Amino acid sequence: MKIALAQINYTIGDFDGNFRKMSECIVTAKIQGCQLIIFSELSVCGYIPSDMLNYDSFIKKCHDSLERLIPLSQNIGIIAGCPVLSRLLEGKMLYNAAFLLQDGQIKQQVNKSLLPTYDIFDEYRYFEPNNSFNVVAFEGIKIALTICEDLWNIAEPRLYDFCPMDRLMPQHPDIIINISGSPYSYNHTEERKQLMQQNAKVYGLPLIYVNQVGAHTDLLFDGGSLFVDREGNVIEELAYFKEELRVIEWDMNREYQALQTINKDDDIEVIREALVMGIRDYFQKSGFKKAILGLSGGIDSALVNALAVEALGAKNVLSVLLPSKFSSKGSIEDSVDLCRKTGNDYKIIPILEPVEALEKTLDVVFTDHPRDVTEENLQARSRGILLMAICNKLGHILLNTSNKSESAVGYATLYGDMCGGLSVIGDLYKTQVYEMCRSINKTREIIPLNILTKAPSAELRPNQLDSDSLPPYDVLDKILLHYIENQKGRAEIVELGFDEATVRKVVRMVDNNEYKRFQAAPTLRISHKAFGQGRRMPLVAKYYD
Amino acid sequence: MKIALAQINYTIGDFDGNFRKMSECIVTAKIQGCQLIIFSELSVCGYIPSDMLNYDSFIKKCHDSLERLIPLSQNIGIIAGCPVLSRLLEGKMLYNAAFLLQDGQIKQQVNKSLLPTYDIFDEYRYFEPNNSFNVVAFEGIKIALTICEDLWNIAEPRLYDFCPMDRLMPQHPDIIINISGSPYSYNHTEERKQLMQQNAKVYGLPLIYVNQVGAHTDLLFDGGSLFVDREGNVIEELAYFKEELRVIEWDMNREYQALQTINKDDDIEVIREALVMGIRDYFQKSGFKKAILGLSGGIDSALVNALAVEALGAKNVLSVLLPSKFSSKGSIEDSVDLCRKTGNDYKIIPILEPVEALEKTLDVVFTDHPRDVTEENLQARSRGILLMAICNKLGHILLNTSNKSESAVGYATLYGDMCGGLSVIGDLYKTQVYEMCRSINKTREIIPLNILTKAPSAELRPNQLDSDSLPPYDVLDKILLHYIENQKGRAEIVELGFDEATVRKVVRMVDNNEYKRFQAAPTLRISHKAFGQGRRMPLVAKYYD
Repeated sequence: MKIALAQINYTIGDFDGNFRKMSECIVTAKIQGCQLIIFSELSVCGYIPSDMLNYDSFIKKCHDSLERLIPLSQNIGIIAGCPVLSRLLEGKMLYNAAFLLQDGQIKQQVNKSLLPTYDIFDEYRYFEPNNSFNVVAFEGIKIALTICEDLWNIAEPRLYDFCPMDRLMPQHPDIIINISGSPYSYNHTEERKQLMQQNAKVYGLPLIYVNQVGAHTDLLFDGGSLFVDREGNVIEELAYFKEELRVIEWDMNREYQALQTINKDDDIEVIREALVMGIRDYFQKSGFKKAILGLSGGIDSALVNALAVEALGAKNVLSVLLPSKFSSKGSIEDSVDLCRKTGNDYKIIPILEPVEALEKTLDVVFTDHPRDVTEENLQARSRGILLMAICNKLGHILLNTSNKSESAVGYATLYGDMCGGLSVIGDLYKTQVYEMCRSINKTREIIPLNILTKAPSAELRPNQLDSDSLPPYDVLDKILLHYIENQKGRAEIVELGFDEATVRKVVRMVDNNEYKRFQAAPTLRISHKAFGQGRRMPLVAKYYD
Repeated sequence: MKIALAQINYTIGDFDGNFRKMSECIVTAKIQGCQLIIFSELSVCGYIPSDMLNYDSFIKKCHDSLERLIPLSQNIGIIAGCPVLSRLLEGKMLYNAAFLLQDGQIKQQVNKSLLPTYDIFDEYRYFEPNNSFNVVAFEGIKIALTICEDLWNIAEPRLYDFCPMDRLMPQHPDIIINISGSPYSYNHTEERKQLMQQNAKVYGLPLIYVNQVGAHTDLLFDGGSLFVDREGNVIEELAYFKEELRVIEWDMNREYQALQTINKDDDIEVIREALVMGIRDYFQKSGFKKAILGLSGGIDSALVNALAVEALGAKNVLSVLLPSKFSSKGSIEDSVDLCRKTGNDYKIIPILEPVEALEKTLDVVFTDHPRDVTEENLQARSRGILLMAICNKLGHILLNTSNKSESAVGYATLYGDMCGGLSVIGDLYKTQVYEMCRSINKTREIIPLNILTKAPSAELRPNQLDSDSLPPYDVLDKILLHYIENQKGRAEIVELGFDEATVRKVVRMVDNNEYKRFQAAPTLRISHKAFGQGRRMPLVAKYYD
């Protein structure tokens, strides 16, 4: 049996666009003689439309889209995902469903049983879990049709009290098909692959896994759809961060040649690809072309500049240098050098005069008060206001250049360097920023060496260095990883061998800055615990332990 | 039996503070001869600690706090709420539990069955639902101990497939006790009361309902704990927006005198009380004393000024007038008049010079471009930067003064008038803002009449009026209510009798401004669908229907 795996980049709520992509894949699959084509989870609307699902008018459009697919199922089976009204008198209004369309009819509906509700997932907010289990009959074979999380309870931690596959096995399925909307994180891709292999082995069944690809604002979907044989060997692996329509030949009795796959988790190059896709999709899907960013002469903005040029092209990136009286000559030269290397346009807009005018205006209130962080914030906010003005005037989008270490400890000014429509590297610790820059420079120097080697400084007062107020980044980042990603408490982190006073200070800084992050730009998510919708902390609380 | 209902204002994660309040109530209840005292849901830590619940160290502190309560249960029964480890091999790690403590021991643990996961609620993110049902024996009576949502499935829509009370009834309970963390909204208080009455009637049992009170950033808990007799009459009703320890006499065979309660839903005075509590708790719980706000001469900032003075006292509020060349003389005079009436200090800081300096600095990029909304945003952002600078210098918190109508259609400048630590009236439509001002003025004129009667204007260009670009507020607010609160689609709203072009324009404005609201300040929630954590829309999507 020839089966097409359609790994598509959907746009949330773009019913016409999504339908067009799906129907083109169906045509291609038919031409190639496929008997079945498989799309990913909630394919008609894209995964996941969040509270759009609360609108009856949205659900109606999903149903309409499914209706449009039905006539295309002459001479081919179509598996597609769609939210549907449960029509129950009790429970949530919707199911997260997969449909088999065949011979111009809906042949079967399968609802999702296990509803991820943690981190960035909110499925129980919308969906009623399934509790009836039937294999899907298709062309003489029996398919165990499952939806994403349905296969995940086989691994620790077991968040649910059963595995849907255990309920399906008594009906003797021939193959597992899983349609998925599984986001990327740098420690997730390999885990996912292993989990699919584990399912194939445990149930002794071949498995086809179809994921979506593309970015929905902060969430990056990596694709990487799979065909795994009953021994758990990966036979086919689709592209990462790219659309692909792959036709596989499945024969129940055939022996397959296992593919050699490489564990690329933690690979900084893969993270870079993820970020580039994130930038590109954010602009394409929101209908914008051009980005601007503020270039400080530091490594963070240099990296964002390089990534933006890779994603959008040099002609679509405008860098703005906003030197103050504390900016070193080196910072300006390094920034200009960078733009020469990346090839994008830049402007130099000194902030001296607006900062002076703001300070003078504030004299009436500030008299008798010594200079403090307020004046540093004035510089950062003047830059923010100037960058936003250029955005407004030219119709560009401002890219934010903060990294995760800074966001974590609040080493950023709200409405200043925290401005921007999208935070590109806000889920990368400073040490990862360095690693990515070194990796980008491997073939040729894009990020000027000066920028890579100088000591990090905000340059908001004379001779300021990050290390004046923060622990060294290699220590800081490890503490942050334990506190944020690993959700360890202060005492637990100290037990791991870190200095108590340092841990106390860092944890306190993280907690004290929840209020800032609440108003931060959406952040491209590359870890399993990014700031944003996946981490929901109270803003007013007593945190310290 | 004498029973104490302890309606307390908890601080999330303040274990010592919460324990102190609880133990003081226990002492008082003992002195008054109570046999039982009842605290609200998750009382040891406050409802709801969100992702703090993911930290083992936090759960340990909850357990420790419960341990500290146990010895206080000599000569009194204590019902308290606490998250506990489920210790199951499968399912979520935690239960949302209620404990009966007695004779220095944990006598019984009851877990929550129905886990609200919609709007602002995320309980299935953390908790495993209960599925074993036992009444709690106490001093010869049998208590049907339930937790908040457990009683709610009796009403439409039935979000769950059973009612925990139906499982408990075969054990013949004598009384229902419900511990709750139920937030206020102006159309929720009466619904809640009726629901408790309905439960009492349906099950033929008296009911004690204990809610928490106080604000957790955006969420306002109104208290209003209840004692309802088996006929569904409200016998006792505790204070709204205030802590209270009320002792009731319950006798199984006694007939009670029904209390005459008044339906205050939709009452603008009650909404005002809610907002005042919200401001007060935000400052008290975050350890700040003083607020500043920008006074434009318009009605929104005037209202926030009045509310801030009521909540914090006139001496803790600093109003800042930031006139531009487009500000009318009336705006300044009206603002000064307002501050004279509210009694708080004010400063006048003209923004002319910084705006000119910013414009001049931008000349290098803006040459050849006509003036547009960019220059209007520059004014709004100059005000934001100046207000934030004063905050930083003086250690105050900036109150945001945007209303819900503006936030909805994006009639606000990101990093400009959208600045602030807390949005006070961001869940009030403009028409509600007027209504509240008129109500405040009932006994004496606090909001100058001029402010109430002039046509709304942003004063960002000459002779600008809100009505130039927006439908009249009475029309706009109704469309917004249907789209946001009632989740109606465009076609449905048109069917209700609104002009199609207007509806299309308004819906499009709401959708196009999701990106702005994503970075907005937390907003005191007074409706059942406020912007913020209760409304989660995709930022990059195709919205229009």
